[in-house]
Amino acid sequence: MRIILDVQGGDRPASELIAGGLQAAEGLGLEVIFAGDRALIEGEISRRAKQRHLRAKQRHIIIHAPQIITMADSPIEAVRHKPESSLVRGIEYLRHGEAQAFVSPANTGAVMAAALLKLGRIKGIDRPGIGAIIPTITGKKVLVIDVGANVDCAPENLRQFALMGCVYARQILGVAQPKVGLLNIGSERRKGNVLALKTFFLLEQLGNFAGNVEGHQILEGAVDVVVCDGFVGNVLLKAYEGGAAATVKFLKQAISHDFFARLGAFILVPALKNFRRSLSAARFGGAPLLGVRGVVIIAHGNSDAEAIRSAIGVAANSVRSELIAKIERGLGAPSSAAGLALSEELPS
Amino acid sequence: MRIILDVQGGDRPASELIAGGLQAAEGLGLEVIFAGDRALIEGEISRRAKQRHLRAKQRHIIIHAPQIITMADSPIEAVRHKPESSLVRGIEYLRHGEAQAFVSPANTGAVMAAALLKLGRIKGIDRPGIGAIIPTITGKKVLVIDVGANVDCAPENLRQFALMGCVYARQILGVAQPKVGLLNIGSERRKGNVLALKTFFLLEQLGNFAGNVEGHQILEGAVDVVVCDGFVGNVLLKAYEGGAAATVKFLKQAISHDFFARLGAFILVPALKNFRRSLSAARFGGAPLLGVRGVVIIAHGNSDAEAIRSAIGVAANSVRSELIAKIERGLGAPSSAAGLALSEELPS
Repeated sequence: MRIILDVQGGDRPASELIAGGLQAAEGLGLEVIFAGDRALIEGEISRRAKQRHLRAKQRHIIIHAPQIITMADSPIEAVRHKPESSLVRGIEYLRHGEAQAFVSPANTGAVMAAALLKLGRIKGIDRPGIGAIIPTITGKKVLVIDVGANVDCAPENLRQFALMGCVYARQILGVAQPKVGLLNIGSERRKGNVLALKTFFLLEQLGNFAGNVEGHQILEGAVDVVVCDGFVGNVLLKAYEGGAAATVKFLKQAISHDFFARLGAFILVPALKNFRRSLSAARFGGAPLLGVRGVVIIAHGNSDAEAIRSAIGVAANSVRSELIAKIERGLGAPSSAAGLALSEELPS
Repeated sequence: MRIILDVQGGDRPASELIAGGLQAAEGLGLEVIFAGDRALIEGEISRRAKQRHLRAKQRHIIIHAPQIITMADSPIEAVRHKPESSLVRGIEYLRHGEAQAFVSPANTGAVMAAALLKLGRIKGIDRPGIGAIIPTITGKKVLVIDVGANVDCAPENLRQFALMGCVYARQILGVAQPKVGLLNIGSERRKGNVLALKTFFLLEQLGNFAGNVEGHQILEGAVDVVVCDGFVGNVLLKAYEGGAAATVKFLKQAISHDFFARLGAFILVPALKNFRRSLSAARFGGAPLLGVRGVVIIAHGNSDAEAIRSAIGVAANSVRSELIAKIERGLGAPSSAAGLALSEELPS
């Protein structure tokens, strides 16, 4: 398996992202293709090989890219005017079938624009969505889609997120009969804004709609797939992180005076930090861009080596389970393997 | 000071709400007027007096209300067709100036409809907003407005929330120069949905706009007042609660095997629960409905005696600081005591 890693355009230096790529290649037993400045990548790879006293260094394919897309660049402009960037070149390499997935910590809007322009959308999908995989206290994982690709959505977009989300939950999260929830501010069907009210009606026509879910119910594992517009989904993720982080900080403040509490906290804090980190990983560990014709994983801009390694792992799982083909099949054929009870309104 | 408590229409029995009212009256040194079924209220008050062996029981004013507005009722219909409900009668009593504030755990939509119809809006306010007071790890409190009154908003609504929020922060939270943040999904001004983009432009014209804030920054006390539409604000609050609750539950799971951890947790868990509870209190402890011509405090539907007592405390603070008059003045006069740098577009 070959996975392209865009080592430029993230917040951290390319050397750190390259380290993550090398770790993934070794740990996950796959080939990582690096997209970025050739001299920089070669230098970094050989420096790391020397550090580890490896004589025969492994050969890596490098996609040379002299241009850099920054976080401040306007997405579509950037993709059009920087054809020699690691992002555009990497996506083109994916399109040509020379690799099976693309991972990037660059400007999210630009990744999406490049994927849309170069790979195109899956038939039946109007807008791709970014899925975040969040942990719950039961150990089960939940896919929230969209968490930032589309800040203003129509009900039909959310319906399509639900369809793709179910395929993802079956194929990647291993849920045989995924339940879909609509993120809302109350459980009753009359609750919510115009988008939620209209979406409820559309989702009811799917066989596996569990109704409205509220933010505090999601982490309890109430459903498997949560749909919402990208603005609300992004607010939700950051608020989870904020609530968990504040609780951990509060804990640290509370322990300063008591010996036993300090002892207990000494043991507990690492576990708590793990949980908090796994909540953050929803944003930091690699989020699939669902709806484009290729496996594209968005890593957080601030990804370190570990986050990059994790994002490459998410990409590898998607490739192994033939996710894209299965989403295409799930959308194209009402009684397909995806097992969705689709309405007749399904775009075909 | 006289505060009306609506003891019907909450999720819990009236007896529990009455207990909260009696505690508030005693603890806060004010008079609580009970709105609800007279026989029920009188019976409960005398039962509690007997329990405590009080001979001369204190007299309480009761607003008799034979009708009940339920959580399932459509707000405007309910207010129109149940004029003898505790909600409508209580609000009318407030309008007549016979009390200074009204507290209710009933159907939020119905409380808002009754307040709008009977009390009217403050001049310059198109739609009232529900403010939630949330704790931060620094100890400082932050007002988030709106958290559920208006699920679909125009930019102008958010601007008005900002103006009212600043008066609240000055008068109730004691912040001399409150900073306003716009809840968004990134710090850059070009980020966000159509509502956020347009609102940014409007808020820039206020003197105290601190720019966009993200969910995880709010609990760190980045700003004093956060504005958003009621759908997003409600999602935000519930996600904070969810993140904090999940962290506490995770902590409990983690301690099951280690003696010192168990000992530490034994000491820590109460403190953590306090923090979690204070995050919940943002929803449960009494949220001011800002923008109507009277002090109206919305208690959570599931309020227990303690939550009711807390909501009555919030009401008392608003009355004492002459909040409504100060909001009216803040909106009416650009260089008023509210100290806002208002734009020339201010409705007058």
